[in-house]
Amino acid sequence: MIPLTSRFSEILEQRGVLLHFKRGDLIYGLDDPNDMIYWIKKGRVKLSYLDETGRKLALDIFGEGQLFGELSLTQVDKRELLAEALESTEVVAADRNRLLDQAKRDPRLMFEILNLIGSRSRSVQHKLEDMAFKDLPTRLARVLLHLSDTHGHHTPQGLQIDCRLTHQDLADLIGATRTNVTMMLSMFYSNGLLKKGRYITITDERQLREKGYGHKEQLN
Amino acid sequence: MIPLTSRFSEILEQRGVLLHFKRGDLIYGLDDPNDMIYWIKKGRVKLSYLDETGRKLALDIFGEGQLFGELSLTQVDKRELLAEALESTEVVAADRNRLLDQAKRDPRLMFEILNLIGSRSRSVQHKLEDMAFKDLPTRLARVLLHLSDTHGHHTPQGLQIDCRLTHQDLADLIGATRTNVTMMLSMFYSNGLLKKGRYITITDERQLREKGYGHKEQLN
Repeated sequence: MIPLTSRFSEILEQRGVLLHFKRGDLIYGLDDPNDMIYWIKKGRVKLSYLDETGRKLALDIFGEGQLFGELSLTQVDKRELLAEALESTEVVAADRNRLLDQAKRDPRLMFEILNLIGSRSRSVQHKLEDMAFKDLPTRLARVLLHLSDTHGHHTPQGLQIDCRLTHQDLADLIGATRTNVTMMLSMFYSNGLLKKGRYITITDERQLREKGYGHKEQLN
Repeated sequence: MIPLTSRFSEILEQRGVLLHFKRGDLIYGLDDPNDMIYWIKKGRVKLSYLDETGRKLALDIFGEGQLFGELSLTQVDKRELLAEALESTEVVAADRNRLLDQAKRDPRLMFEILNLIGSRSRSVQHKLEDMAFKDLPTRLARVLLHLSDTHGHHTPQGLQIDCRLTHQDLADLIGATRTNVTMMLSMFYSNGLLKKGRYITITDERQLREKGYGHKEQLN
């Protein structure tokens, strides 16, 4: 999770526009103009790639206080990702040109932008490493742990991921089929790693972390 | 390929240190301090991830005029990639702190840095999409076309990739085994897409591009 830095939040509050989205609304789609950066005030947003045949790979699910659309701050004309509201969501949208104009006169803001983009770049690198080196159960364990960092809260039963996730959402996040995810989740439930419910709860974090260190037997 | 922008090249020429590496030398390794950015004056450099068990996924092979190590310009302490010289290589190395100090007073340089990091971030995203959506022959076709953009030159036989590549190098670039790459290359040779030699030559670019649009039959 990238916390919203102080300069950024000031600027967004001064210059941003509040927008509301319903569950399932598209905030931006592929090839939309790359002219805004967004800060999530409330709700959750899924960022995904879509290939030419309509298959989806979800990059991440962001929550309250997180920024997305940050590549609009570099020289890119069109969006290469989709952003969808996973629930009722409020975002503050700021114009990239106004932000960059401001950043010219404000090196601190510029460094914050630089670090944001660097940090996102590294998280895409980590996802690429997972896709290359980790098998599906390991990827599923890792994505659940990652989601619990951003969306988790402790309950008497364990670490609950406060984000309604379908099996397809999880499949999109790890590049698997829905059927595979259903199978792996059953395994995790019966091994006592997770507890089923309206939200997924991690009941044995230590064992899930161990699973998250696994490797692919063989590169495909 | 990211061309070296004018401000960057001025600064590097004024403030950089020339370093020489032999084929196989490590320029930096995992967990090395993240304190320099490099510009390739001559030669070729392979950037790779290494997982805990020593398996490698190569991100890209850079050549003359290209920059690497750019994430040192954001808040990262340690290298998360390896950089190896693939042949006798000369690089100009510049201290990240001096560059960033300069960038504070020079918004044009800062924008160039921002765009460089954004552009690299997108190329990692594209690699991730390939790993998720494309099968191995498609990934091989795409990586050969990509390498020909950076390292290719036209000859009477076709587009020659001026970079000595072992089957293992190609396997590392697409997340495959060496055996798989050998098999696929034989197929490409016998279909007349490529010509064998000291360097690989793309003899039928159109057909290779068509191959590069293929998809994975089924997510794994």
